[in-house]
Amino acid sequence: MTDIDNIILGIDPGTQILGFGVIQVAGKKVSYVDMGVIDLKKDKDHFVTLRRILGEVSALIEKYMPDELAVEAPFYGKNPQVMLKLGRAQGAAISAALLKGIPIFEYAPRSVKLAVTGKGSASKEQVALMAQRLLKIDFPQEYPDATDALAIALCHYYHRSNPLIHTKKSGGWEEFVKQNPDKLC
Amino acid sequence: MTDIDNIILGIDPGTQILGFGVIQVAGKKVSYVDMGVIDLKKDKDHFVTLRRILGEVSALIEKYMPDELAVEAPFYGKNPQVMLKLGRAQGAAISAALLKGIPIFEYAPRSVKLAVTGKGSASKEQVALMAQRLLKIDFPQEYPDATDALAIALCHYYHRSNPLIHTKKSGGWEEFVKQNPDKLC
Repeated sequence: MTDIDNIILGIDPGTQILGFGVIQVAGKKVSYVDMGVIDLKKDKDHFVTLRRILGEVSALIEKYMPDELAVEAPFYGKNPQVMLKLGRAQGAAISAALLKGIPIFEYAPRSVKLAVTGKGSASKEQVALMAQRLLKIDFPQEYPDATDALAIALCHYYHRSNPLIHTKKSGGWEEFVKQNPDKLC
Repeated sequence: MTDIDNIILGIDPGTQILGFGVIQVAGKKVSYVDMGVIDLKKDKDHFVTLRRILGEVSALIEKYMPDELAVEAPFYGKNPQVMLKLGRAQGAAISAALLKGIPIFEYAPRSVKLAVTGKGSASKEQVALMAQRLLKIDFPQEYPDATDALAIALCHYYHRSNPLIHTKKSGGWEEFVKQNPDKLC
């Protein structure tokens, strides 16, 4: 595992909700910094939404000074028009990082699930529980978009480091189920 | 027709080629300012492309000081992944305008064709020829993406003004064919 010391901002920029998660890496230790969601549902105009995304992500960058940005790149489903709007939302979030010269990395949803739980087909709840375990915190379950963003940041951390070591260390979802039967719904 | 006096920048931001067209509106007169393409095919990394789009559109805005930006919003076809990448490219171009507080307008391809030629199913060549006629210039045919961008700017001009007056004034594609048989391939 490479010794790295940086801040990773994970972003899950939808057109309805923008989720974000921030983690800090110090040597071999990864720790939770913050997570949250920005509600975009009240923006009636698409370009107002894009302006808010650009502004909000710029503000997150100002606040947390991340060294890297990680975003999700969905490869599946939905109609072309939805994907165009989602792409624009991502483009606005990415532009905020480009303006600050921050390197950007993208991961497919399956890669995020695989990196965090050891299982590419894991559910959102499984990803959230594993992220909690890995970061040694309890966070509210009502913000799935924030948890997703945190998982994207964690995915980037493991990809930067060594996913094989991670898989071995974490034990994956199967081992977690054995150890934490009380945490399952 | 409303008296307007402004500069409209039309952008056709793809992931391979970015086309742009600039028109000036003074009272009831619309005139050609510039058009061109920015080749993005050599950018091997998607985020390098997005950074270039953000930078190039910012430079166009610095140069022409447009009052409004018009972009195309394709509603059809292509696979979701292509649409996501196209959306990101558009999101980067739109962000350049958002940073300068420039209002943004979007038009479906059919609306652009209809506004410029009077025919929603017009070909690219028909749109290019009508745009030349409307702007009273001859421009090279080798830049279809630039012509498209110019047509998007023209579409916005007509939508801001009065599409009915335009349709009546221009006579549409049918009339153009009668008057210019030598310009048809």
